[in-house]
Amino acid sequence: MGTALLDMSMSLDGYIAGPGDALELPGGEGFALHDWFGDPDAPAGTEADLRQFAEITQAGAVLSGRRTAQQTGHWGGDHHAMGVPIFVVSRSAPPSEVADMPLVHYVRDVVEAIGQAKEAAGDRHVHMIGAGWVPAAIDAGAIDEIRIHHVPLLMGGGRRLFDVLARPVALEILQVDAAPKATHIRYRVVR
Amino acid sequence: MGTALLDMSMSLDGYIAGPGDALELPGGEGFALHDWFGDPDAPAGTEADLRQFAEITQAGAVLSGRRTAQQTGHWGGDHHAMGVPIFVVSRSAPPSEVADMPLVHYVRDVVEAIGQAKEAAGDRHVHMIGAGWVPAAIDAGAIDEIRIHHVPLLMGGGRRLFDVLARPVALEILQVDAAPKATHIRYRVVR
Repeated sequence: MGTALLDMSMSLDGYIAGPGDALELPGGEGFALHDWFGDPDAPAGTEADLRQFAEITQAGAVLSGRRTAQQTGHWGGDHHAMGVPIFVVSRSAPPSEVADMPLVHYVRDVVEAIGQAKEAAGDRHVHMIGAGWVPAAIDAGAIDEIRIHHVPLLMGGGRRLFDVLARPVALEILQVDAAPKATHIRYRVVR
Repeated sequence: MGTALLDMSMSLDGYIAGPGDALELPGGEGFALHDWFGDPDAPAGTEADLRQFAEITQAGAVLSGRRTAQQTGHWGGDHHAMGVPIFVVSRSAPPSEVADMPLVHYVRDVVEAIGQAKEAAGDRHVHMIGAGWVPAAIDAGAIDEIRIHHVPLLMGGGRRLFDVLARPVALEILQVDAAPKATHIRYRVVR
């Protein structure tokens, strides 16, 4: 079975979106967290950045929260044209546009969603994006690895990636890949 | 003039102290943020860790908030036996023990305190520790560099290093020093 990998760009003060993040303003104000790769359809950067970005597109499934999925229009129904299933964690019913997107699946429970995504991904990893669902998934032990693109920026406000957890969780550093616009660090969740 | 360097060990979720941090329990529960060097009087770790730790002791002045200073008993009046002045940012009057500590100076205003510390440090850097005073100092442009020892740990609660800022602040990565127990990253504050 593949790895459930939480994969996020984060500012030094822990934000993954700036102030005012909303459907109409994805990422909020002053958003520079993805400058390390630039345009996802024509990524740029150092060799380290491009290697890091390429890993995303090798995923066998994608999982995200409702907010990110709806802000991006469910990636047009096919995340980065990878042709892999997209699991959306949401307690609400899917919006009507999803009826025409056979790869998109709404799942109410986060642990159930990660389980389905891992099964769909086979021996490839699950690329997981989000914030709101993360604490519950960590508390349940459902996240295998965390890859943070540490961006040299203090956003000063916005949406934080990590919130209060039931208990501390030890991590192990698997890889550090340094570049001017981001320090890419991959962590294993120790159980 | 030397560099005003904020120098902190921080968990991946942004905490510099665990839950229950108090005078009687410095650092709070589950505190493992300083494991990368261990005992400050006999530091251990990899070559990178020891090099990073050694930089602390080359400071020409120390600056901290009241909480840290009082939790440590003002380091017995002499931080790491370095014999350099210690500036404590506090709106309260100093406790009586400080009368016997000629190196310890209480200063009410954080920008004034950093200015006095830089003057005292000469061409050496100011080793700055703390959390509560940090946002005001960043907003005032009084911090030159930030060195974060990124520790592979999710604390899940406690005291965060960074709080809400008046505006975003860009940083520049000066150095990345990777070791198993911490990724040491030094940032310059871009003005």
